[in-house]
Amino acid sequence: MAARERLLVIGGDAAGMSAASQARRRRGPDELEILVVERGHYASYSACGIPYFVGGVVEDLGKLIARTPAEFRDLGIDLRLRTEAVEIDVDGGRVRVRAEDGGERWEVYDDLMIATGAVPSRPRLPGADAAGVHGVQILDDGVAIRRAVEDGKPRRAVVVGGGYIGLEMAEAMVMRGLEVSLVDIADQPMQTLDPDMGAIVADAIRGIGVRLYLGEPVAGFDTSPDGHVTAVRTESRTLPADLVVFGLGVKPASGLAREAGVAVGPTGGIVTDRRMRTPTERVWAAGDCVETRHLVSGAPVAIALGTHANKQGRVAGVNLGGGYATFPGVVGTAVSKICTVEVARTGLNEREAAAAGFATLSVVVESTTRAGYHPGATAMKTKLIAERRSGRLLGAQIVGEENAAKRVDGLAIALWNGMTVEEMTGLDLGYAPPFAPVWDPVLIAARKTADAVEQDMRSRS
Amino acid sequence: MAARERLLVIGGDAAGMSAASQARRRRGPDELEILVVERGHYASYSACGIPYFVGGVVEDLGKLIARTPAEFRDLGIDLRLRTEAVEIDVDGGRVRVRAEDGGERWEVYDDLMIATGAVPSRPRLPGADAAGVHGVQILDDGVAIRRAVEDGKPRRAVVVGGGYIGLEMAEAMVMRGLEVSLVDIADQPMQTLDPDMGAIVADAIRGIGVRLYLGEPVAGFDTSPDGHVTAVRTESRTLPADLVVFGLGVKPASGLAREAGVAVGPTGGIVTDRRMRTPTERVWAAGDCVETRHLVSGAPVAIALGTHANKQGRVAGVNLGGGYATFPGVVGTAVSKICTVEVARTGLNEREAAAAGFATLSVVVESTTRAGYHPGATAMKTKLIAERRSGRLLGAQIVGEENAAKRVDGLAIALWNGMTVEEMTGLDLGYAPPFAPVWDPVLIAARKTADAVEQDMRSRS
Repeated sequence: MAARERLLVIGGDAAGMSAASQARRRRGPDELEILVVERGHYASYSACGIPYFVGGVVEDLGKLIARTPAEFRDLGIDLRLRTEAVEIDVDGGRVRVRAEDGGERWEVYDDLMIATGAVPSRPRLPGADAAGVHGVQILDDGVAIRRAVEDGKPRRAVVVGGGYIGLEMAEAMVMRGLEVSLVDIADQPMQTLDPDMGAIVADAIRGIGVRLYLGEPVAGFDTSPDGHVTAVRTESRTLPADLVVFGLGVKPASGLAREAGVAVGPTGGIVTDRRMRTPTERVWAAGDCVETRHLVSGAPVAIALGTHANKQGRVAGVNLGGGYATFPGVVGTAVSKICTVEVARTGLNEREAAAAGFATLSVVVESTTRAGYHPGATAMKTKLIAERRSGRLLGAQIVGEENAAKRVDGLAIALWNGMTVEEMTGLDLGYAPPFAPVWDPVLIAARKTADAVEQDMRSRS
Repeated sequence: MAARERLLVIGGDAAGMSAASQARRRRGPDELEILVVERGHYASYSACGIPYFVGGVVEDLGKLIARTPAEFRDLGIDLRLRTEAVEIDVDGGRVRVRAEDGGERWEVYDDLMIATGAVPSRPRLPGADAAGVHGVQILDDGVAIRRAVEDGKPRRAVVVGGGYIGLEMAEAMVMRGLEVSLVDIADQPMQTLDPDMGAIVADAIRGIGVRLYLGEPVAGFDTSPDGHVTAVRTESRTLPADLVVFGLGVKPASGLAREAGVAVGPTGGIVTDRRMRTPTERVWAAGDCVETRHLVSGAPVAIALGTHANKQGRVAGVNLGGGYATFPGVVGTAVSKICTVEVARTGLNEREAAAAGFATLSVVVESTTRAGYHPGATAMKTKLIAERRSGRLLGAQIVGEENAAKRVDGLAIALWNGMTVEEMTGLDLGYAPPFAPVWDPVLIAARKTADAVEQDMRSRS
């Protein structure tokens, strides 16, 4: 019998715990020891649920936690919270960890899984670290913000940055009765959408009472003598703030890996192959800290999203357990909801497509979610972006109400398979009056985009 | 200049009017005369909307009508209602039509478009044509049933046949306050689903108060001396009925074509190529009266559905107008809703797959429509059917609540592209807590089916 090996996992959320669980399924405790170190108070939770926890939509913190440390212990996984990995020594096959009391020790490994997640971007400005200023990444952040909101003191909140998290947090704080402003350096919120679609989101945000200041870079933060934030300053105004939340996106938390000599790619994410192996022997990585391949552009991307983290963690765990699994890449699908307005995107937007070297054509169609005569039918806009000449679908965006956003799945699968918009016009999609008009919005959009591709070709011939 | 040609269209609903409109777009009235004859009182309406009109969900009949005869006239399309085609003479290039007053005349054509739709199946039993017994196909049927319901006399309705239309009509009549029974010769309603999924639909139907009598063939109909239906008899019981509705499915209305020597295939549908041309010169056909290719089984199928009829009609019209368009076939996607229960299917069910010569493996997974902790998350069941060994997806079925059914679109697109369940496990689907659990039901189902395929292979090696 082979000697018992040791798997050390850094990071106890989606990717780390998925990897640990999968490895355990395939290799019992006699064969594989599994140690997970997690710097926060919580592990195995839904980070995407944080805005709903802050807003009170999800009352109980426990509901966000998939498995407790005790449950992992029962599986033979030693999960240590409040324990931070501070150095990786790949030559020595060991990691220096710091416990809550500050004590440090080296933990050895046969295989190392890096699942350190991401860190919220923060402007390098005085006051950006003041009390009352929060990033949103780990569940501890959510707990801190909810505590601040529930203590009843804050009246005015400023969200800096209008990405998904920023918008979801803005809505959550509106639900809590705060006066909420949102500042973004860009001319539109949700930069992952094209400006025409982003403008609809901006209207929705204003519609729930959020004051939107677009095209305004943050210039600084005012603080009180006791070090608490009191205002956010832009070049045009000073916004009083009892609470500030960053929604500027996140960056891969790859510093530890980089310092250890583990390859980090151009996106700042750790480099892995399709089996989630880094180029460093017996070092694996998965989740928000890695970069992956965008299957439309072919370029590496770092996209922090629970669904990728879970899949990648699972893939790493299967491989660590002696099986074979791969993570092929992403097509950039994302969905979100601001009150009743649903937003979805997949593939490349116009800017991204241009950056990737594609010449594109775009079409936006207005349609309804159900047959026009069916009560409850609401408006939705579908935008398709196709490559000139080939007509290959490159990206799609949807903004609408009830039931609009999840329709992006079909578009993501069409993208995944490299379909052209002309081919898509024949697709056999579900039709009944409560679900779609007889010409599904996706079919109308495909038809119009295919027509645009054809016209474009004629005008150039 | 070429002489003006004449397009004659038989049937003024989805396929016929789409063809006429498309042909007109490409060829003006100076070039092409277009005559459409329609036997009913209405044209260009949503037949799929009939149950909602009967149930009162859609109040106004006009809402079901996309374009009036006057609007078609303005487009230069001569649409004649209450005018029935009674004979096609392909050698003479003419069609004998009968006007409302019984007068007949021959109308010549250069191109003929047959869009005669479908006829509801009726049991060949005495009383099946009695007053108060209705099929559901053209809008006239819907108007007659709603009139019968609204005159307040019927108290007890019996639906014979538990297909989509039967179930939707049962719900509509429950909404109208009638006591509704549903009789089906099969052991489950909705034969397009496998028995395990159909059983859930049966429960939903019972849940809204419909009495379900399954596995009971109808033996006959009792009628009053004045010829009105009074009861439906099965082998086991007599169900008093003031109103009877058939939901036994429909058959292609291909009799006129067959009599004229236009080829009719094994399904009873008119045979066409991908451009919607029949083998008879200058005779085209589209909609519920034709058969098309099932892209999974490769076999011809006749599926009466507005979405196919519209697409096929458009394709025929583009080609009639001098353009090039094709209808590639279908994958058998359908969605429906019984109160809050949504039902969807695509591809082949187990019975159909076996008939097509596939050895299959199936997996049913229970999941939720949103993240489990998100309020409003409801249960949904997803069934995938894959080919043994290859793991190619062959079919899928979904039963669930809010937002469950339209997820079938993604599965239909996966099928369309011939994906295997293993490939599907990597799909990048939209994830956020209000829209899906972090492991989307489709991904879980794909994973479990892929595992089943692998296990099956091992157990046979």
